[in-house]
Amino acid sequence: MTSPRQLGIAVAGVGRIGRMHARIIAEQIPQARLAGVYDISADSAQEVADELRVDAAPSIDELLAAPGVDALAICTATNTHSELIIKAAQAGKAVFCEKPLSLSLSAVDDAIAAVDAAGVPFMVGFNRRFDPGHAAVRQAVQSGELGELTIARITSRDPSPPPIEYVRISGGIWVDMLIHDFDMANFIVGSPVVQIWAQGAALIDEGIRAAGDFDTAVAVLTHASGAITTIDASRQAPYGYDQRVEALGTKGMALSDNRRDNNAQVFVEGATRQAPFQHFFLERYTDSYRLEWLAFTDYAQHGGPSPVSGSDGRAPIVMAMAAGLSAKEGRPVRLDEIG
Amino acid sequence: MTSPRQLGIAVAGVGRIGRMHARIIAEQIPQARLAGVYDISADSAQEVADELRVDAAPSIDELLAAPGVDALAICTATNTHSELIIKAAQAGKAVFCEKPLSLSLSAVDDAIAAVDAAGVPFMVGFNRRFDPGHAAVRQAVQSGELGELTIARITSRDPSPPPIEYVRISGGIWVDMLIHDFDMANFIVGSPVVQIWAQGAALIDEGIRAAGDFDTAVAVLTHASGAITTIDASRQAPYGYDQRVEALGTKGMALSDNRRDNNAQVFVEGATRQAPFQHFFLERYTDSYRLEWLAFTDYAQHGGPSPVSGSDGRAPIVMAMAAGLSAKEGRPVRLDEIG
Amino acid sequence: MTSPRQLGIAVAGVGRIGRMHARIIAEQIPQARLAGVYDISADSAQEVADELRVDAAPSIDELLAAPGVDALAICTATNTHSELIIKAAQAGKAVFCEKPLSLSLSAVDDAIAAVDAAGVPFMVGFNRRFDPGHAAVRQAVQSGELGELTIARITSRDPSPPPIEYVRISGGIWVDMLIHDFDMANFIVGSPVVQIWAQGAALIDEGIRAAGDFDTAVAVLTHASGAITTIDASRQAPYGYDQRVEALGTKGMALSDNRRDNNAQVFVEGATRQAPFQHFFLERYTDSYRLEWLAFTDYAQHGGPSPVSGSDGRAPIVMAMAAGLSAKEGRPVRLDEIG
Amino acid sequence: MTSPRQLGIAVAGVGRIGRMHARIIAEQIPQARLAGVYDISADSAQEVADELRVDAAPSIDELLAAPGVDALAICTATNTHSELIIKAAQAGKAVFCEKPLSLSLSAVDDAIAAVDAAGVPFMVGFNRRFDPGHAAVRQAVQSGELGELTIARITSRDPSPPPIEYVRISGGIWVDMLIHDFDMANFIVGSPVVQIWAQGAALIDEGIRAAGDFDTAVAVLTHASGAITTIDASRQAPYGYDQRVEALGTKGMALSDNRRDNNAQVFVEGATRQAPFQHFFLERYTDSYRLEWLAFTDYAQHGGPSPVSGSDGRAPIVMAMAAGLSAKEGRPVRLDEIG
Repeated sequence: MTSPRQLGIAVAGVGRIGRMHARIIAEQIPQARLAGVYDISADSAQEVADELRVDAAPSIDELLAAPGVDALAICTATNTHSELIIKAAQAGKAVFCEKPLSLSLSAVDDAIAAVDAAGVPFMVGFNRRFDPGHAAVRQAVQSGELGELTIARITSRDPSPPPIEYVRISGGIWVDMLIHDFDMANFIVGSPVVQIWAQGAALIDEGIRAAGDFDTAVAVLTHASGAITTIDASRQAPYGYDQRVEALGTKGMALSDNRRDNNAQVFVEGATRQAPFQHFFLERYTDSYRLEWLAFTDYAQHGGPSPVSGSDGRAPIVMAMAAGLSAKEGRPVRLDEIG
Repeated sequence: MTSPRQLGIAVAGVGRIGRMHARIIAEQIPQARLAGVYDISADSAQEVADELRVDAAPSIDELLAAPGVDALAICTATNTHSELIIKAAQAGKAVFCEKPLSLSLSAVDDAIAAVDAAGVPFMVGFNRRFDPGHAAVRQAVQSGELGELTIARITSRDPSPPPIEYVRISGGIWVDMLIHDFDMANFIVGSPVVQIWAQGAALIDEGIRAAGDFDTAVAVLTHASGAITTIDASRQAPYGYDQRVEALGTKGMALSDNRRDNNAQVFVEGATRQAPFQHFFLERYTDSYRLEWLAFTDYAQHGGPSPVSGSDGRAPIVMAMAAGLSAKEGRPVRLDEIG
Repeated sequence: MTSPRQLGIAVAGVGRIGRMHARIIAEQIPQARLAGVYDISADSAQEVADELRVDAAPSIDELLAAPGVDALAICTATNTHSELIIKAAQAGKAVFCEKPLSLSLSAVDDAIAAVDAAGVPFMVGFNRRFDPGHAAVRQAVQSGELGELTIARITSRDPSPPPIEYVRISGGIWVDMLIHDFDMANFIVGSPVVQIWAQGAALIDEGIRAAGDFDTAVAVLTHASGAITTIDASRQAPYGYDQRVEALGTKGMALSDNRRDNNAQVFVEGATRQAPFQHFFLERYTDSYRLEWLAFTDYAQHGGPSPVSGSDGRAPIVMAMAAGLSAKEGRPVRLDEIG
Repeated sequence: MTSPRQLGIAVAGVGRIGRMHARIIAEQIPQARLAGVYDISADSAQEVADELRVDAAPSIDELLAAPGVDALAICTATNTHSELIIKAAQAGKAVFCEKPLSLSLSAVDDAIAAVDAAGVPFMVGFNRRFDPGHAAVRQAVQSGELGELTIARITSRDPSPPPIEYVRISGGIWVDMLIHDFDMANFIVGSPVVQIWAQGAALIDEGIRAAGDFDTAVAVLTHASGAITTIDASRQAPYGYDQRVEALGTKGMALSDNRRDNNAQVFVEGATRQAPFQHFFLERYTDSYRLEWLAFTDYAQHGGPSPVSGSDGRAPIVMAMAAGLSAKEGRPVRLDEIG
C-alpha cells in the first residue's frame, strides 16, 4: 500500500507524545506513512510497532537506515534532541523535533547549524500554532484588519499540576510550560521580544514550592514594535484546560476562546449550566496536531519556508531564560543579556 | 419647564402597565411630558399623579379636556379600548392603545374607522417590535441579506403562570399571550398569514386546565409568500423569561437571543454556571418600552406611517381567533374564514 | 495484530458513509477490527480494502463466510437493507444497519423478525443519538431535573440541497431527512408519538419543486404524554449545517447548540465576527460516529439492550409516512392510521 | 411629594457625570430625592435645576444650608474634592465623592480625617463595584467556591482617546484611567497590594505621546496574599468599551464579560455577526450607577460599613503613584515607598 508519493516518517521516542504522533502519522495523514519506530525501551517500541503494524528498530542508527525513512520525528527526552537532530540531518532526513529544542543554547545552535549545513527540512513542534482558533487570530493580525498591534494577552492554565517527579526534571515553569506561550506571543505579534518582566509564585502545590519552582506565573513581554504581551499561567485550573489568546490593535481585536466538551446548556431556576472546557491538550489540540503533521508533510515534500523554523524554536528558549532571570532577580531582563 | 416642543401625553389606566408607561413618559422621553392621568380607581390615579407630580383627572372626558393634552395613552381594560379610541380620536388627540385592541372584530373596525375619519395619529402598543434584538432581525430581513424568507421561529415563554383569576378573564392563551407572537411573525416575515395550524395542551397548571385553557401552545403559520412560521409558547419557564425570534432565508439566518441578569460566568469542576435570563417583560423589554415611546412621540409630532398601525393591531386578533378555532377543531384554519 | 478480544466487523457497501464507517472501525475503535469489505462495485471495494489493508469479498455471502467476521455493517442502498439483515442474522452475525431500515414496513417487520428469531445483536445507525450535546439534553431529561417535558424543538438544516438525481430516489424529505429528527424526538422526549401535523414547501430549489418534493418542512408531533415537538427542516442553510435540539420541562430547559469551525472572534468597529458552524454532518457528527461504533462494539460483545433497537428504527419510518400523508392531505394524521 | 423617609441629596458640579448623578437621584431612587444643585457655571446649574425641577444654589455654602439637604454628592473638579468633603462633613452631611479623591495624598488624608471627626457617612464613587457582573465575580470569590485566589485579570479599554486638552490635565493614565482598575483589583482580590510593576507605551495617539503620557498600559500587582493581578488598559478599542474582570482560584474561576448593544446574531455564508459591545461607560455602567445610589442612600439612612470607604478611596491613589514611578524608573515599586 506504500504510495511513492507518501512521506515515510520514522518516530524516535514513543512515550505519550511520540505515540500520539505515530498514530496520527499512521492513520490521519494521507500523504505520509509511518516508516518505523524506536524507543529507549524496546518493549514500548515493539508495542507501538505492533499496534500500528510497522517495524521497531533496535537503535536510532538502524531506524535512520531503514528502508523508506524520509523523515525523523524526534520525541525523545529533551537532552537528546540536539544530538538526534544532528544525526538525522547528516543522514539527509527531514527533521521534526518536539519542543524545547534543548535547555542549552549552544546545543540549540549546534543543531540549527547542522540542519543548515545539510540543507534538510527542519520544523519544531509548536503545535499550538496550528490550532484553528489561534491561527485565526494570527490571520486577523496578518490581514491588517486589526491595525497595528498594541497589546496581546495569553492565558495558559493546565487542569492540574504534573507529578512532582516530572516537575523536578522539567527545567522549571518558564521553560516547561511558558515556552509554548512565549512562542505564541512571537507567532501572534510577529515582532521580536526585547525585554521581559516575569514573576512567579507557589500558591497551589507544596511540592512545587519545595522544589523551588512556581505554579503560578505572570510575564510581561515588550516587543520591538512597542507592543506589550501579558501572559498568565497556572499549573492548576480545576475547571479544565484554559488556553486563550487575544490580540488588540489600533483597529480591532481578535481572540481565540476555549471549546467545551459539548455544546449543551441546561437552564434551571437561577442558573444556566454548560459543560466544562475540554480537559487537556490531547482533547483541545487534537486538530492542531493533525494540522501540524499535514504542514510538516507538505513542507518536507514541497519545500518553502519552515512552518516553525530553527530560529522560531530558539527564541522561546532565550525568553524562558530571561523570564527565569527576571523572576529570580526581581528586575526586567533584556533578551540581549541572554544571547 | 414645559417646552413648547414637548408632546403632552395623558395616560388612561394606571395599573401595572399604565403606571410603567406614565413613568417612562415623565422621566425618559425628553420630547414628551406626562400631561395627566386617569384611572377607574381614583386612589390609584392620585398615587401615580403624586409620584409623578401631575394632575389626576376625575373622568376620561376631563382628562381629554385638560390643558396640554396632545395625546392619549389607553392602558385600561381591553373591553374599554374601542370606546376610548373613538372618544380620543373625536377629540383630535393622537392615540396610543395597548394590545389587544379588542376581543371583538367589529369593535376594532369601529375604532380604526374613527381614527381614520379623525385623521389623528394612531399606534398600537406592540412594544416587542422595538426590542433592539428583534428589530435587528427585522432589519436583517428587510436589508435583503437573508434572501427570501423560508422559515421563522418564535419562542415565547413566561416565567410562571398568571393567577387563575387573570387566566379566566384573559380571553385564552391565543389572544392573551400569542397575540404578541402573531404580531412578531407579521413584523419579521412581512407577508400576511393565510392559514394557521394550532394546538394547545394543559400540562403544567391544573387551574388552567380546569378553566378550559392551555398552558402550552404551538402554532404553525403559513404566509402568503409561502414562508412558514412556527411558534411555541408556554405559561411557565422556570429558568426565566424566554423570548427568542429567528428568521431563515435563502441566503442566511438571523436570531434574537435572550439577555441574562448579568454577564458573569463561574467555572468550577465539571461545569460553567451563568446567571439566568432576565426575569420577565419589565426587565427584558425595558429598552423596547422606552424606544416605543420615542417612536410614538416622533410619529405624533412629525407624521409619517404609524410604527404599529391599526391594521397591524387588527391582524393578530384575527390570527388569535383562527388559532383558537384550529385548536378547538383539530384542523388548519384559513384566515379568510375569520374576517 | 488481531486480538482475540476484538470484534471483527465487515462492511457491506462502501459509498461515502460505508467508507467512513470502515475507516472508523479500522482506526479508531480499539475493541474492533475491520474484517473485510464488500461493494456492488468491485473497484470501490478493492480501493477501500487496499487503503485499510483488508480483503475485499466478491459477494455478501463470501463476506459473511470470511474468517473473523463477527458482525456486519450494512451501508448499501436502502432497498437491500432488509434482505441483508435477514441474511446476516441467519448467519449468526451481529448486525448494524444504516437508516432507514426500509421504505416498506413489511420489509422492516420481516427484518426485525429475523433478527429476533436469530437472537443476534441488532442496532440501527441513528448516529445523532451519540452526539455529546444531544445526548446531554437526553440525559438532562432522563435525570428528572427538567421535570415533565412539555415542548421539544428540533431544527435540522443541511448546508445545501443534494443533487436532484439524489432527491428523486430519496423517498422524499420526510423519509430522507426528517427521519433523523423523528428519531431525535423519540430519543429526547421518550414518549411515543400519536399524531403528526406536517406541512412542506418548495421555496428554494426549482428542481425539488418539479420533482414534487419539499425543500422546507415543518412538523408538529403530539406525544402520548401530551408533550408537543416542533421540527423545522430545510435543505439549505447557507451559513452551515444547523442542528439544534431543545427540551422544555416543568422545571427547566436544555438545549444542544451548534459548534463552529473554530472559537475565534474578531471584533472590529460595529460588529463582532465568528467562524461559521461546522460545515456538514461529517464535521459536526465526527464524535457521534465514533461513539456509535464504540456503543455497537460494546453491545455486540457484552449484550444488554440495543442502543438503537429494531423498534427504534421502525418508529421514524411510520412517522415519516404519517408526515407525508399529513402534508399531502392537509390534516393531522394519527400514527395508528399507518401501522 | 417629599417623603420624610427620602434622603435629600444635593449635587455639587453638574458636568457630564454630575448631571447623570442628578438625574438618577431625581428619577430612579425612590428612597432619595434631589435637593438642589450647584455648579461653578451658574448657567449649567440653572439648566439642570430647570430640567429636574429643583433649585440651583449660588454657592456651595448656600447649597449645604438649603432646606432638606441631607447629603452632598461631590462631582466637581478633582482639585476641589478635599475641600468640599471637609466642608460637607463639618456641616454634618453624608458625603459622596467622585474618584479620585485627590491627586495629593495629604489632601486625601485631611479629607478622611474630617469625615472621621464628623462621624458622617462617606462613600467614594467607584461605581464599577456595583456592576452586576463584576459584583458576581466578587461574590464568587467571597463565597469561597473559587478557593484561594491565585491570579486576577482586568481588561480596561476605552472606545477612543479623550481630547488632548483633557489628557493634559488628567494626571496621566495611571491616575485617570487605571485608578478604576486598581480599585477593582482590591475589590475582587480582597488582599492589599504590596508591589506594582507597570509599563506604558504611546502607540496610538501622537498627542498623548507628545504630552508625555501613555495610551497603552500594563500593570502587574502583587497582593499580600501572594495572588497576582494583571491589568491591561488602552485608551482606544475601536470595537467598543471593553471591561472584563476575571479571578482564578485554587478551586475555580469567575469572569465578568461585556454586554452587547443587542443580542441578535446574523449568520451568513462564512461568518456569524453580532452587535458590538456597549459603547462606553454610560451604556455599560447604567445599572452600576443606579445601584451605587441605592447603596449610598441605604448606607446614609441606615448606617453600616461604607460600601466604598475612605481607605478604599485612598488605596488606588497610592497604587497609581506607585505605577507611575514603576513605569518611569523601569523597576517594581513597593507601595510602602509611597505612603
